[in-house]
Amino acid sequence: MATREFTHAVIEPAIGPLNKGLGPIPAGQARRVEWNLLREDLSLPAAVLYQDRLMHNLNWMREFIQAYGVRLAPHGKTTMAPRLFEMQLDSGAWGITVATAHQAFVAYEHGIRRVLMANELIGKENFAIVSRMLRDPGFEYFCLADSAAQIELLGAYFAEQSQHIHILLELGVMGGRTGIRNNAQLNEVLAALARWKDTIALDGVEIYEGVLDEEAAIRAFLQRAVETARRLRDEARFQRTPFLLSGAGSAWYDVVAEVFTAAGFGDSVEIVLRPGCYLTHDVGSYRRAQERILHNNPVAHHMTSGLIPALHVWAYVQSVPESEKAIIGMGRRDAAFDSGLPVPALHFRPGTRSPEAAPADWETTKLMDQHAFLKIAPGDDIKVGDMIAFDICHPCLTFDKWRVLPIVDRNFNVVEVIQTFF
Amino acid sequence: MATREFTHAVIEPAIGPLNKGLGPIPAGQARRVEWNLLREDLSLPAAVLYQDRLMHNLNWMREFIQAYGVRLAPHGKTTMAPRLFEMQLDSGAWGITVATAHQAFVAYEHGIRRVLMANELIGKENFAIVSRMLRDPGFEYFCLADSAAQIELLGAYFAEQSQHIHILLELGVMGGRTGIRNNAQLNEVLAALARWKDTIALDGVEIYEGVLDEEAAIRAFLQRAVETARRLRDEARFQRTPFLLSGAGSAWYDVVAEVFTAAGFGDSVEIVLRPGCYLTHDVGSYRRAQERILHNNPVAHHMTSGLIPALHVWAYVQSVPESEKAIIGMGRRDAAFDSGLPVPALHFRPGTRSPEAAPADWETTKLMDQHAFLKIAPGDDIKVGDMIAFDICHPCLTFDKWRVLPIVDRNFNVVEVIQTFF
Repeated sequence: MATREFTHAVIEPAIGPLNKGLGPIPAGQARRVEWNLLREDLSLPAAVLYQDRLMHNLNWMREFIQAYGVRLAPHGKTTMAPRLFEMQLDSGAWGITVATAHQAFVAYEHGIRRVLMANELIGKENFAIVSRMLRDPGFEYFCLADSAAQIELLGAYFAEQSQHIHILLELGVMGGRTGIRNNAQLNEVLAALARWKDTIALDGVEIYEGVLDEEAAIRAFLQRAVETARRLRDEARFQRTPFLLSGAGSAWYDVVAEVFTAAGFGDSVEIVLRPGCYLTHDVGSYRRAQERILHNNPVAHHMTSGLIPALHVWAYVQSVPESEKAIIGMGRRDAAFDSGLPVPALHFRPGTRSPEAAPADWETTKLMDQHAFLKIAPGDDIKVGDMIAFDICHPCLTFDKWRVLPIVDRNFNVVEVIQTFF
Repeated sequence: MATREFTHAVIEPAIGPLNKGLGPIPAGQARRVEWNLLREDLSLPAAVLYQDRLMHNLNWMREFIQAYGVRLAPHGKTTMAPRLFEMQLDSGAWGITVATAHQAFVAYEHGIRRVLMANELIGKENFAIVSRMLRDPGFEYFCLADSAAQIELLGAYFAEQSQHIHILLELGVMGGRTGIRNNAQLNEVLAALARWKDTIALDGVEIYEGVLDEEAAIRAFLQRAVETARRLRDEARFQRTPFLLSGAGSAWYDVVAEVFTAAGFGDSVEIVLRPGCYLTHDVGSYRRAQERILHNNPVAHHMTSGLIPALHVWAYVQSVPESEKAIIGMGRRDAAFDSGLPVPALHFRPGTRSPEAAPADWETTKLMDQHAFLKIAPGDDIKVGDMIAFDICHPCLTFDKWRVLPIVDRNFNVVEVIQTFF
């Protein structure tokens, strides 16, 4: 472990000392820190990002997106970390996707100037938040609409502000989430849009295929989006050139890229994909999705490697009260548990050289609010005070547990501390 | 709805504009706001506390605790809201319980001067956090210990600082969480304590009975704690007079109060109960627990009413895409889902007089990250733009989704905005 040469991370003044997962933040203006995770400089539990793995994932997705000639608007709701948005934009992203007016505002306040809100905008104060941002002529914002009722609310509000609001029509499926289900609903929305044509600009079509599980159903849904977009284009309903055609969560972006690029819209369309979890990846549903993508997708199949998990939650062994059980100082307050429990990845004993892979038979069997139950085997070399790094399943619900996350280099030196805004 | 007379809430400078669940925060020093929830002044989703219900619950617990003549150290990890800690102390609490060194630090920085950390303290940086607080002679801090290994780590660190650290021995049960399982472990811990007697003060005994489900097993566990405390007292192991005997989460505090007060320790003990969820209550496992308490416990049985839910998550109807389904702008990012999904409580249409009880057959059937699926009946009067208030199941995992929560009065005027620190 080369801990002699530390990179100095600079802690921004905005980062107060009251967030979990850091060490003591030096007082004063220039708050440079020389923290090393393995030297126990951080207060665990801590959610830690790996610089090289983030870079690997950024590059992987850029290569994939470029191969298809599509746009990437990573879903920012996953991390809500403007510093990571910045890395994504630096790596070629076209814009940032968000889920709420609040999230759009966070992105805007951190300099993001193209936001796709992949959700229906609703509510007076949410309208007001968007309206204030739209006073900036350099700010490009799109939200979704899926009902005449919503169009009426949007139209009335933004007409009163003498502002234009840009929308994508969201299509949905029966049994799914939001989105227009059928032609009758579509025609109602189009009629409402005709009433508000001076206020609301229809710029494209959007779907979220992730509400479906089966590839055949997903392909059919994507095809429906293509056909709807074709109809709307042929009817000259779009006010944007090129119009936008957007889909894709983190599990089916390959199929979305394939079907949308095969639609033959040429230069008349911008295809926008919105995966959010690729940046940190996980060892849960997105790892399974990625295995399918690497196997099935011709572009991904020829890339040298896949995405790799770039986020660990590190925590201490607090107690080994039974021969087959260790209690870890990490819980539902620290890691997602809705898509699989955290998986022990590394085991480190302070004072030793470097972490080792956690034994394959160690398993998190239960998560309480502040504790994890780790199943071990009798006689395993595990002690109170040892550090364990856990891979996580579902980045979104892990990020929202943390207000600050250190980024470490290969030597576990903290090179940066990033903030989240939830 | 008497919306003419607004109470002015003052937004502290520490509250930035980037937190979800508020409206636009006025710039400048004196940031007084006149927000009313029903006038749509807040950006939904928002987690909202009800002033009168908080007061009711505070008073209820004070009365209960006083009837037993025990101490209350509410578990602060539930809310991590120092303003609520303050209300709890104002209502007679003896101290605040926390689960981690970070949480202890948050409490300390907000003026709390007696902290019971109901968890094993582990890790160099966590030791350092506690050590710095202990330099304040006015700060009283207790943590738990359950292994000789941990005692050695604590002893070595605090001896080097020439500081004393105060611990409670934690007892645990087989199949449970942390805590000493048997006499052999107890004797090992006592031997380790003898080696560090100048550094580590043994001040009492602690259990968390909430790892058990059955009342008989809980009573047996409590009895074991009483017997262990008696042995340690008789052996003059305690350095504090009176010694501490602590137990109780939010589900079995009545039984803990009963058994511990019946132990006959008289003035030689301070019994400290640690429920955390009573303040906001819920409609999940704690409502069920409270029903048992009101039915079985002689003190609670004679009180005029029980605890009442004091926290709602308010959100908009975003879409009604199917005749039996509405999509709500609230998800796993906004409310706990591990102990039951949020339950629709109130339905309000902006512009109308006041909220009405949500129909009893409305039901949250699914929670995604940012959306809820609400089952409705065909023909129900529900529209895009309506506001729904949801009761929640499990306050802890709801609070940690929010950095700020407005407190409203009976007229839904915001009278205060509180911060959380996770």
